[in-house]
Amino acid sequence: MATQPTDSRTTIAAIATAAGIGGIAVIRVSGPEAILISEKGFRPRQILGLSASHTAHVGRFVDGSALVIDEVVATVFRAPNSYTGEEVVELSCHGSSFIAHRILDALLAFGARLAEPGEFTKRAFLNGRIDLAQAEAVADLIGARSEMARRASLDQLSGGMSKRISALRDSLISLVGLLELELDFVEEDIELVEGKSVEHRVADAISEIDEMIRSYSAGRFVQEGVRVVLAGGPNVGKSSILNALLEEERAIVTDVPGTTRDVIEESVSIGGLQFVLSDTAIDIVEQHGMERTEKKIQNSDILLLVVDGSQEIGERELDSIERVLRKVKSASCECIVVLNKEDLGVSKTKNGKFEQILECFPKVRMSARTGSGLDELRAGLVYATHKGNMESSESGVLVTSLRHKDALTGAKMALERAQQAAISRESSEFVVLDLRAALDKLGEIIGLTTAEDILNSIFSKFCIGK
Amino acid sequence: MATQPTDSRTTIAAIATAAGIGGIAVIRVSGPEAILISEKGFRPRQILGLSASHTAHVGRFVDGSALVIDEVVATVFRAPNSYTGEEVVELSCHGSSFIAHRILDALLAFGARLAEPGEFTKRAFLNGRIDLAQAEAVADLIGARSEMARRASLDQLSGGMSKRISALRDSLISLVGLLELELDFVEEDIELVEGKSVEHRVADAISEIDEMIRSYSAGRFVQEGVRVVLAGGPNVGKSSILNALLEEERAIVTDVPGTTRDVIEESVSIGGLQFVLSDTAIDIVEQHGMERTEKKIQNSDILLLVVDGSQEIGERELDSIERVLRKVKSASCECIVVLNKEDLGVSKTKNGKFEQILECFPKVRMSARTGSGLDELRAGLVYATHKGNMESSESGVLVTSLRHKDALTGAKMALERAQQAAISRESSEFVVLDLRAALDKLGEIIGLTTAEDILNSIFSKFCIGK
Repeated sequence: MATQPTDSRTTIAAIATAAGIGGIAVIRVSGPEAILISEKGFRPRQILGLSASHTAHVGRFVDGSALVIDEVVATVFRAPNSYTGEEVVELSCHGSSFIAHRILDALLAFGARLAEPGEFTKRAFLNGRIDLAQAEAVADLIGARSEMARRASLDQLSGGMSKRISALRDSLISLVGLLELELDFVEEDIELVEGKSVEHRVADAISEIDEMIRSYSAGRFVQEGVRVVLAGGPNVGKSSILNALLEEERAIVTDVPGTTRDVIEESVSIGGLQFVLSDTAIDIVEQHGMERTEKKIQNSDILLLVVDGSQEIGERELDSIERVLRKVKSASCECIVVLNKEDLGVSKTKNGKFEQILECFPKVRMSARTGSGLDELRAGLVYATHKGNMESSESGVLVTSLRHKDALTGAKMALERAQQAAISRESSEFVVLDLRAALDKLGEIIGLTTAEDILNSIFSKFCIGK
Repeated sequence: MATQPTDSRTTIAAIATAAGIGGIAVIRVSGPEAILISEKGFRPRQILGLSASHTAHVGRFVDGSALVIDEVVATVFRAPNSYTGEEVVELSCHGSSFIAHRILDALLAFGARLAEPGEFTKRAFLNGRIDLAQAEAVADLIGARSEMARRASLDQLSGGMSKRISALRDSLISLVGLLELELDFVEEDIELVEGKSVEHRVADAISEIDEMIRSYSAGRFVQEGVRVVLAGGPNVGKSSILNALLEEERAIVTDVPGTTRDVIEESVSIGGLQFVLSDTAIDIVEQHGMERTEKKIQNSDILLLVVDGSQEIGERELDSIERVLRKVKSASCECIVVLNKEDLGVSKTKNGKFEQILECFPKVRMSARTGSGLDELRAGLVYATHKGNMESSESGVLVTSLRHKDALTGAKMALERAQQAAISRESSEFVVLDLRAALDKLGEIIGLTTAEDILNSIFSKFCIGK
């Protein structure tokens, strides 16, 4: 598979560990001359070249002026039994960026080229160590910020997705083979595959692809998090609820550094899922606030509609709530009604209209001040996320990438054309054409038929050193 | 050597790479059960236990529920040929803190204990793999932010300091041996060492220790950076000079992340040395500014005194300059006179008093606006730092730690007492007592005679995972 003109015969090097101060840092070298180039800096001499694969060697690393940079451990992985499938040396040094950069500089002076983002993984793909879906999973795995995201990425990396796509392609390829054989004998008018059977087999493939496409909404939740917006009338305790949800988690979440502070502060992990909370709570009684809420609902997965459960709801607030809920119904946004301030008592005065409007929405009674009901709210968030979205993940494979979903949708459309052609008893030639188009689309997911520019855009999103 | 009651027979684990997102992260496990505990999570089973030292193994790591956390490479180092001298396993996983923490959690559940800061290096010291000065150098090396700091730390880690201290101790120990032998035969009145010879040998030791103590000012520059303050009259371009010095470097320096922004913004690396620039330039003509300048001079290594070289200096400014320079002479602060605004021409009107006051100070003519003379200013900063300070580093060993300097000073004082006793022909008993005190002080540096609390305070400054 050809790719952009980054010469794959050159040897590349990059710092593979996160920037900053740690106990150790690792510089990775890969390519035909990885060992040769590393040996120029490694002392004692002539150790790495003679060493077996998967062995670690303690020594020093010197620069071009024979000046010792640091003590290092060099681990040698021989082609093809390495991450990239090429000769690989991993140099582990003392964990300062300063030292790691000095060693990297020396390696570049010795003849290595600085690796592009994702180039190690790209080489693993080009050398057939992993397929494209697995390569993409590497980036997802590194970026995983919740338990379910980690699991979905690891499953994809382990080939879960790839196996299913391959099985689907195999079944379509055998169908194409039979249909093409039939075309060869078209004069003899031999029917190797029954017309009905073609329709059935294509329909089966469509329904399997459909299931995978449906899993994308759950997959997106897993990969990108569930978007939650908080809205309600004035003084109902919106910000307190936001803080109560964030506060307990903040200590845990900020424990995982590496992303910008903005993202950290708005994101909580509940039940293995990541919830991205809109950082401001909106007052729906204000005209401006109502407009913002309506807009937010379009782009959110869950609305937490907060009311003061200890008081009767005023007419004006009720009107606003009614308007918001109309919007909710027209958008694909779940809504949870949060009856706050439970600690101040529960309003006895029933407002008939209020009961009626909110009838069909799940309700959580809580107090942000005392923390009562907070667990129920968390459970409600997880439930609302799973509701109608997560069941398709039971099939085992979760589509988490928009690129995969688009390819699956393309494959489905081609199969539907093939199905139509089969039903209307058109020549097998047309059916085969559409089946081939579907195969190409499926092949894109695992990298069999992927255009160069798509490959480049996939790997450019990686960090350098992976 | 006993230490605090952190049971050294337990197996410890910690994430060894910097926090954040990278290609890979490394978790280090050390202790008698390092391999046994790692094996509980490593799949395929029974690989690590049977593997030779310094070998790497590809597999998966599972948690207590047999759920796969990630694909890993486990490198096994067998005791005593490891960093700590114990059984060590290094687990390299995909570089997200999230995954690294999950693996660490699993290791803790399997029976490891979370390592304390510096505990790996402390164990290396306690197991005799390195001495105390070398252990301290590990922390310095990781924190090194300039080329000279890296070199000094690496030299100390390689045993440069330790060898010199050991040689000094050996020579004193042989002297003590002879003097004690003499004491055994005191009745026979045998003189094994000539009185004069004792004096000479102690004097030699004192002069060697003196040289090491003198290297501390250079060592401090190397380790902590050179403190520079900018001051001058109003509108002479102080801030422009500060920015010109910082600007070019900022891009380079911020390329090395991991420390707080405050430090980064004020610190530049010139000629392999780190200069810490006081972040504000002070107007010396103001009364408050003069006081601040006088105070700063006390705590700075170099004063950049800025004047407008394109104009004649007014009397008031001249008085302030005179006062500042008086302070410079009484403090141990170097001064460079910066004649700025060269691009606006050079003042022809000579002020006799100005010439006279500044006569004996080095001058740099420059323009912060055009950048002319900036290289000269940089060279001037490096020269002023070396002047009278760095030559002692030629002996090869640079004392960079206040703890070492204090121990050396203690040893010197004890040796001076021994010298005095020898000169006044006191009994060898007293000489031996003082020599032994000096030996103890020297032993503190390499950890032979170091109190527990000192050990603990040294290692508590390390980061976890080292």
